[in-house]
Amino acid sequence: MKILRYPEPQDLANGLVRPESDTAVIQSQVAEIFEAVRKDGDAALLRYTEKFDSISLKKIVPSKDEIAAQAKLCPVELQKAITQAKQNIEKFHLAQEETFSPIETMPGVLLWRRSTPIEKVGLYVPGGTAPLFSTVLMLAIPAQLAGCSEITLCTPPQKNGLVHPAVAFAAQLCGAPKIACVGGAQAIAAMVFGTESISKALKVFGPGNVYVTAAKELANEYGVAADLPAGASELAVLADGTANPVFIAADILSQAEHGTDSHTMFVTTSEALADRVQAEISKQIGALPRKEIVKAALDKSVVVIVKTLNDAIMAVNTYAPEHLSIDVKDPSAVLESISNAGSVFVGSYSPEAAGDYASGTNHTLPTGGWAAMTGGISLESFMKKITFQKITKEGLQSLGHTIITMAEAEGLKGHAQAIRVRM
Amino acid sequence: MKILRYPEPQDLANGLVRPESDTAVIQSQVAEIFEAVRKDGDAALLRYTEKFDSISLKKIVPSKDEIAAQAKLCPVELQKAITQAKQNIEKFHLAQEETFSPIETMPGVLLWRRSTPIEKVGLYVPGGTAPLFSTVLMLAIPAQLAGCSEITLCTPPQKNGLVHPAVAFAAQLCGAPKIACVGGAQAIAAMVFGTESISKALKVFGPGNVYVTAAKELANEYGVAADLPAGASELAVLADGTANPVFIAADILSQAEHGTDSHTMFVTTSEALADRVQAEISKQIGALPRKEIVKAALDKSVVVIVKTLNDAIMAVNTYAPEHLSIDVKDPSAVLESISNAGSVFVGSYSPEAAGDYASGTNHTLPTGGWAAMTGGISLESFMKKITFQKITKEGLQSLGHTIITMAEAEGLKGHAQAIRVRM
Repeated sequence: MKILRYPEPQDLANGLVRPESDTAVIQSQVAEIFEAVRKDGDAALLRYTEKFDSISLKKIVPSKDEIAAQAKLCPVELQKAITQAKQNIEKFHLAQEETFSPIETMPGVLLWRRSTPIEKVGLYVPGGTAPLFSTVLMLAIPAQLAGCSEITLCTPPQKNGLVHPAVAFAAQLCGAPKIACVGGAQAIAAMVFGTESISKALKVFGPGNVYVTAAKELANEYGVAADLPAGASELAVLADGTANPVFIAADILSQAEHGTDSHTMFVTTSEALADRVQAEISKQIGALPRKEIVKAALDKSVVVIVKTLNDAIMAVNTYAPEHLSIDVKDPSAVLESISNAGSVFVGSYSPEAAGDYASGTNHTLPTGGWAAMTGGISLESFMKKITFQKITKEGLQSLGHTIITMAEAEGLKGHAQAIRVRM
Repeated sequence: MKILRYPEPQDLANGLVRPESDTAVIQSQVAEIFEAVRKDGDAALLRYTEKFDSISLKKIVPSKDEIAAQAKLCPVELQKAITQAKQNIEKFHLAQEETFSPIETMPGVLLWRRSTPIEKVGLYVPGGTAPLFSTVLMLAIPAQLAGCSEITLCTPPQKNGLVHPAVAFAAQLCGAPKIACVGGAQAIAAMVFGTESISKALKVFGPGNVYVTAAKELANEYGVAADLPAGASELAVLADGTANPVFIAADILSQAEHGTDSHTMFVTTSEALADRVQAEISKQIGALPRKEIVKAALDKSVVVIVKTLNDAIMAVNTYAPEHLSIDVKDPSAVLESISNAGSVFVGSYSPEAAGDYASGTNHTLPTGGWAAMTGGISLESFMKKITFQKITKEGLQSLGHTIITMAEAEGLKGHAQAIRVRM
């Protein structure tokens, strides 16, 4: 890990720059995949699955029975854990439901709004080294709660061509969306255009590698919305001298094992803690099977030593991390000042891993600094808010003159006329 | 207006396709403007203002005194109207504030979320044939209420090089954001990169022509968020035989006067009403100064005659209009079934023009079918929601096993380890 000692603001900003990937090549490859899927539909999907995943499939969408058979292979212990996680995620996302009471802005001018589900949504669940069944929960639960009527879930198949048991189990538990065995940019393309076996979606969701991220960006140009730019994972840890270095080291390592492009930033007011955390990292790293990934990620990560908690807060807000762990003597004061972060973990017993899986918050969060502008996935991500107004004849009498005056000043006589004919 | 009589679903979908503009040329022009602004800053802005607006400016940001002097030129009658509109818009947007009570998903597992302002925002207010001071209200009021700490407003100058009096007045009334005299794609570029006189924004907002829309899309690639694709304006009117043709004709005309690319769709169960509305349009059109624009817009617009209210609702949901006027005998049943629309106007005395200016709803709304996926601008557009969790030692004891089981099944030992060190 790089170390920044008492940096000036500009050095801090430079030191916190995330590693970049070359997107131009990726974009042109993804555009090619989009064109092929648009033209050839399922045939293109089968071709790409053979090419990128080295799996030769006969069909893309397994039958309900096939999914059920796979789900049964999920170990009972894991079934229990997934069920527990589902309950917590459901509770927190249900609590996000908006109740909006109509208000009168003037007598006779009644306004309200209503959250309405996005009808057709497409969920992407990455496979890779291990199938991320936790992402099934994080996407399918809010989609189901929102009331989306058509939910398609794309995920790369296992080497044997079948859906991973835990993915099948989690999907069934969340109301069994239609599962399609396809991954990567071609999966996003399938949900953007629709194919013989996959429905066109209005909005696509889910994390993924740089190809998936580029594909979600491209989706926009075809009139399909995308959730948020979810790139390489990030963690910032903010701690003072009271924090436990063993816990912090474990959290940093857990973040680093996501991928070589994972990024962590550890900011502290205690030089002694910084030393102890680094010693602990060296000690704990030996136990991890993904050591090489962890080391590569740590090489690009950074320790920032600052004079005051205020400096630490400024560093975190500048970085705008996806995840933020706070372990200080008095967290409430620090919490108040955090303005840029995706999800925050407060105190020694709130490890970031809890939010990845089971405490109830969503783990699909903004990365790459986007936490300064947007939150993570929530119930609202699967809905849109429609505004309504009902004005009475008397209400329009009171408001009409204002509207006419403004419309005419903007040179829009027709707008004024629409009021006059009613007055 | 085109007429579709009792169309089959596919004919309906084809008939409701919006006119398209050629975006490829526009995108490359906008990319060129971005490059110039990034390189030359203010100098490029002054150059483009000379080139596109034929105005030679000495500086881009007028002083506070200059703004105040312009604001004083706003007629008193219009000042009153703007002030009234501001009160209503403020009330409705204030009512959108979220209060989220922390919840325990399990004993000792406390979760909550907090809406936090986006620190630096850029607002775009189009000029064109008339300066849209109403857009100042629609953007600056929620930005102010959200608590954004840096608000920049870009708007093209008048021919005399000064800010329009009504724009200056509205801006002052809304807490006086910093006003910059620059329009078009170059204004968006300035807010994306920052220049000597304009601050870099984290998110840009506002309607505009195809260049501005393309510029907002491009903003994303530079890590700056954009509000929503707000293209050519649209209105759908859904009415049965009880509706007043004079009112409907006036509403359709008011929509059509926005621009030649405005689009309206009128769906009704009453063939007689369809005839009367068209007759009324011919009658009322004569009084409008923007006749030629209106005619061009109406040429591309469509009347749909259907058998039942359900068919009418289906047509509207397929179209997903920016604005929807509903004038039927029993609106409540229809309202329930509307799933895709930006803002809805209910009953004979709720003209769409009321929402454009003064009733309190926001007029920056999704167009081009995006109302199926996203709502219009709201207080939340200027904020992001950060999730938080605080788990007690006992809470983690109960939840820990679930997390460990899931993490190990995903092959993430480091995540399991981060729990184990705490248990």
